[in-house]
Amino acid sequence: MPMKTLQDAMVEELQDMLHAERQIASALPKMAAKTSNTKLREAFESHARQTEGQIERLERAFQAVGAEAKARRCEGIEGILEEGEQFMRDELDQDVLDAMLIAAAQKVEHYEIASYGTLRTWAQMLKNDDAVKLMEESLAEEKDTDQKLTEIAETVVNKQAT
Amino acid sequence: MPMKTLQDAMVEELQDMLHAERQIASALPKMAAKTSNTKLREAFESHARQTEGQIERLERAFQAVGAEAKARRCEGIEGILEEGEQFMRDELDQDVLDAMLIAAAQKVEHYEIASYGTLRTWAQMLKNDDAVKLMEESLAEEKDTDQKLTEIAETVVNKQAT
Repeated sequence: MPMKTLQDAMVEELQDMLHAERQIASALPKMAAKTSNTKLREAFESHARQTEGQIERLERAFQAVGAEAKARRCEGIEGILEEGEQFMRDELDQDVLDAMLIAAAQKVEHYEIASYGTLRTWAQMLKNDDAVKLMEESLAEEKDTDQKLTEIAETVVNKQAT
Repeated sequence: MPMKTLQDAMVEELQDMLHAERQIASALPKMAAKTSNTKLREAFESHARQTEGQIERLERAFQAVGAEAKARRCEGIEGILEEGEQFMRDELDQDVLDAMLIAAAQKVEHYEIASYGTLRTWAQMLKNDDAVKLMEESLAEEKDTDQKLTEIAETVVNKQAT
């Protein structure tokens, strides 16, 4: 069994993220259906479309590193989404539910920011410019989504919930 | 059963973070023992001490919101740490192991950045200045630790790992 290289680590992290993004793509429409806040629903719907593009970018990143695109179970995102599922089963006031949906979505975004940041750095070190560009594009989208959620939280949802 | 308020949501998120920080406090020394990189070991050891202070801040935040300090199982951080445990069992080149330890630690940091950011915003909306201050202090520490890890990754570990 050969020692694992940074290239191997990169392929495994891509597999982890492919699984994560597919789970997120399936969770976002459920989250959008739970909110009555128009801005928040639009943010979830827009990010669901973005997530499809991010899945395509991951598939292209697999090509760029010469590996087959396949998913590997991602415990991190499963745990975060499981937390969200739990409170969606609770009896909640709509505004409090919205505040909690935003909190769950921001945990998802930050998981992805950490992972795309790692993938970008590793791709730089491997001098794989195509992979760097793909990961940078997705990283920028995740940071932008996180910022939008913070703005919605601060200006709309939380004021109603107090 | 009364409807849950933002105050209730805040107490639950504090409980979640108390469990998370305790798990992190126990994981960091194991991560420090696995690395042979001096800067990285020092970063893990320093953050382990910081984590003890963050646990104390959470206990004071419980007081500030008038709730008893207790922990509640946090699926998110369990999943992230479980991923880290898995690769620590693999046969890895030391430099690749270091790169992966940093990646795992940054997922932990970003989980905490998301959670302390939520707690700070909710405390602001609840006009609880003491809780705002406590959560802001921990949020700043987490962002600083994440930044330090990025610097170590970029300047030391990943260059060796390629």
